[in-house]
Amino acid sequence: MTLKVSDVGEKELVKYIISNSKGITPDDTAITEFDSTNLISTTDMLIQSRHFPKNMSYFHMGFKAVTVNVSDLAAMGAEPFGFLLSMAIPKNLRLDDFKEILNGVLSACDYYSIPLIGGDTNEASEIIISGTALGLCDEPLMRYDYNLGDVIAVTGDIGLAALGFELEDLDNVYSEKALKPKARLKEGQILKKYGATSATDITDGLASELYEIKKDDFGFMIHEELLGISDEYKQLANELDLDYLDLVFHVGEDFELLFTISKDNLEKLPIYYKVIGEVTDSDVIELTLENGFVETIKNKGYEHYVSE
Amino acid sequence: MTLKVSDVGEKELVKYIISNSKGITPDDTAITEFDSTNLISTTDMLIQSRHFPKNMSYFHMGFKAVTVNVSDLAAMGAEPFGFLLSMAIPKNLRLDDFKEILNGVLSACDYYSIPLIGGDTNEASEIIISGTALGLCDEPLMRYDYNLGDVIAVTGDIGLAALGFELEDLDNVYSEKALKPKARLKEGQILKKYGATSATDITDGLASELYEIKKDDFGFMIHEELLGISDEYKQLANELDLDYLDLVFHVGEDFELLFTISKDNLEKLPIYYKVIGEVTDSDVIELTLENGFVETIKNKGYEHYVSE
Repeated sequence: MTLKVSDVGEKELVKYIISNSKGITPDDTAITEFDSTNLISTTDMLIQSRHFPKNMSYFHMGFKAVTVNVSDLAAMGAEPFGFLLSMAIPKNLRLDDFKEILNGVLSACDYYSIPLIGGDTNEASEIIISGTALGLCDEPLMRYDYNLGDVIAVTGDIGLAALGFELEDLDNVYSEKALKPKARLKEGQILKKYGATSATDITDGLASELYEIKKDDFGFMIHEELLGISDEYKQLANELDLDYLDLVFHVGEDFELLFTISKDNLEKLPIYYKVIGEVTDSDVIELTLENGFVETIKNKGYEHYVSE
Repeated sequence: MTLKVSDVGEKELVKYIISNSKGITPDDTAITEFDSTNLISTTDMLIQSRHFPKNMSYFHMGFKAVTVNVSDLAAMGAEPFGFLLSMAIPKNLRLDDFKEILNGVLSACDYYSIPLIGGDTNEASEIIISGTALGLCDEPLMRYDYNLGDVIAVTGDIGLAALGFELEDLDNVYSEKALKPKARLKEGQILKKYGATSATDITDGLASELYEIKKDDFGFMIHEELLGISDEYKQLANELDLDYLDLVFHVGEDFELLFTISKDNLEKLPIYYKVIGEVTDSDVIELTLENGFVETIKNKGYEHYVSE
């Protein structure tokens, strides 16, 4: 039988790339020593049919293309340095819509104080926006520096975007988060300054990111009650016939930062955060449910290629 | 009437991006001051149906994705620093073919001595490879520093790829150039060292690139006899019912460097080059034909969107 890429999945393909290259640091971004600091670089491609909900405006497509890349800089605690844009658009796209995409890109660059330093266009059958974000960072926030007893926390509510993607009504916090995501750039820099022991951005879902930062002999215990899932959230999920824990753990696109930090440093942290669990030496990733039962969190996130 | 992007064309879209961003240097790449040098960065997206001839192997798709980006570094005379890869592939692509694309990328990175520092994959209906090349350069080779009397030259034969795209037979220099293009990275560095007064890489065609480097009150006179178009080339074009000058001037994809340099510096230049004309003060771009007639070269190159 001939193996297809869908037989192995996106994460395995990326692992294959990493294992075949001497120059790649397996973290949220590339880290390359440069003079007395590090150049932090990351590239991410958004494809209309995959990454832009049908209700998303052209402006917010452009904004999101910057956000997804800046979010990786945020996860390193980096200072932004420059953004490069490469986009492909259908030839029958209205010129005004093209300008709206660019307005979104430029507004996001302003919002994150990252200058747009390069831009190129191509033709394709759908909108494809590839961005590259460059940053600088003396001591990047890595994924694996945590210790037993550190707490695990997030920079904001999670699961909102996942629900937002499912709602028809656009005038609510969930749709707002799904259609107009923002990267936690300042928070990442503060986390680095206050001694966070790891950070990553939540794009593929909380479960998937927990597995991304897991290291041998360590584990995480997450507590459902700490996730602060509102009754409204549970009710809306129920009306849509969706499992609210599945939405919270396995969808993502929140662009909040997931981080670990010692309890001492946590107390000083001058940003909003929500502790959701702690680092253990269990070697597994588990969830204590509100009913007291403990279950293993599945390593399932939003992944291309893999058939359900 | 509602304007479409196809009504204005790709070059106008890029101009619109540049005019709306304070941070963009309008040259082959972005140039960002950093400590005592400049970070040179460029991003280019290749789309299977647009940029990969049907005879191109998966290996050479990957190789080309690096070449097109490194070629922009070459045009600045930059030293390579790192390459980031972001690709989208159909889910039914054979795993072995994916590996061949990656092999091509890695081989090209080795060839150009540019480390692959980041990689990501996505799903799309066709193969899309977006690359970002980073380089360093203290004094980049800009496009507009030439003077009256400088010669205009190229680093190799031009028009070969254009013919290669049209041929069924693959075992010839033309197909080789079309399917396995190489960037002139070392040549770009040498041109910078030996005082070239401008450089750009030939991707959209010689005519288009001449217009890209034209500045007010200056012009270029190109001489057909200096282009060294072989009888074989003319004959093959004729058999295909194609105008050989159209192939040479208006197709591109040669990835040779087009450059200007003073006559004194030209004599010392330790690389292969071919002088094709000179800088004039005519404010027009002209061609002296072999029959002695002079005609204006049209500003027509390979451009997406614009209907023929």
